[in-house]
Amino acid sequence: MTGSVQRIRAEAAGPYEVFHTDCPARDVVDHVTSRWGVWVLISLRSNDLRFYELRESIRGVSEKMLAQTLRALVQDGLVWREVEPTTPPQVTYGLTEFGRDIGEPLTELFDRITRRLPPRDAG
Amino acid sequence: MTGSVQRIRAEAAGPYEVFHTDCPARDVVDHVTSRWGVWVLISLRSNDLRFYELRESIRGVSEKMLAQTLRALVQDGLVWREVEPTTPPQVTYGLTEFGRDIGEPLTELFDRITRRLPPRDAG
Repeated sequence: MTGSVQRIRAEAAGPYEVFHTDCPARDVVDHVTSRWGVWVLISLRSNDLRFYELRESIRGVSEKMLAQTLRALVQDGLVWREVEPTTPPQVTYGLTEFGRDIGEPLTELFDRITRRLPPRDAG
Repeated sequence: MTGSVQRIRAEAAGPYEVFHTDCPARDVVDHVTSRWGVWVLISLRSNDLRFYELRESIRGVSEKMLAQTLRALVQDGLVWREVEPTTPPQVTYGLTEFGRDIGEPLTELFDRITRRLPPRDAG
């Protein structure tokens, strides 16, 4: 049975040992699948959004958590951030090409989950 | 600009208002994309595994966190749990049909992330 553990590691390894806590890919996976990262990436799939719009569309997220999530996603190269020098400055966020690429399986995941859940009665 | 926020909500809503914290789909999404849920689901894609094998294959996870993650995934119907009445009892975990369905886009997500990262030098 130990053999199967070894096999999984070898298969999953690729260029990185993603199952290892030191792996840089694991950081990105963790950010993408973080408590709020999923919803930010899904929200931005249809439109670029202002900070306050993101906050509006993702219910339950605090300003602090949203800022922290966006910072990580920008750092990973998944989300771009644009500041318009108005007063007050307007900050817009959108998906980079990498972000769009990731958004696809993420939306598929999300769709497959909602499809499986029993339909909810209206009202 | 408020119009775009409304549009996203309407699109994402489907039978459920998934962006709402009360939504049952959101619970499942949160479990699937939880700190360790991703790795459990990906690990189980190639083989059914014993508890200790899962712990071995996912580095950095504590026994407590792994047990908690597995409990949530079993409850969601993504993972099955089988106890063999040996001494000590052997507990095996595997993916249900729903779990396999979810595992696909999750693996795709994971692959797309690793593909984008710069190759790491050996050693």
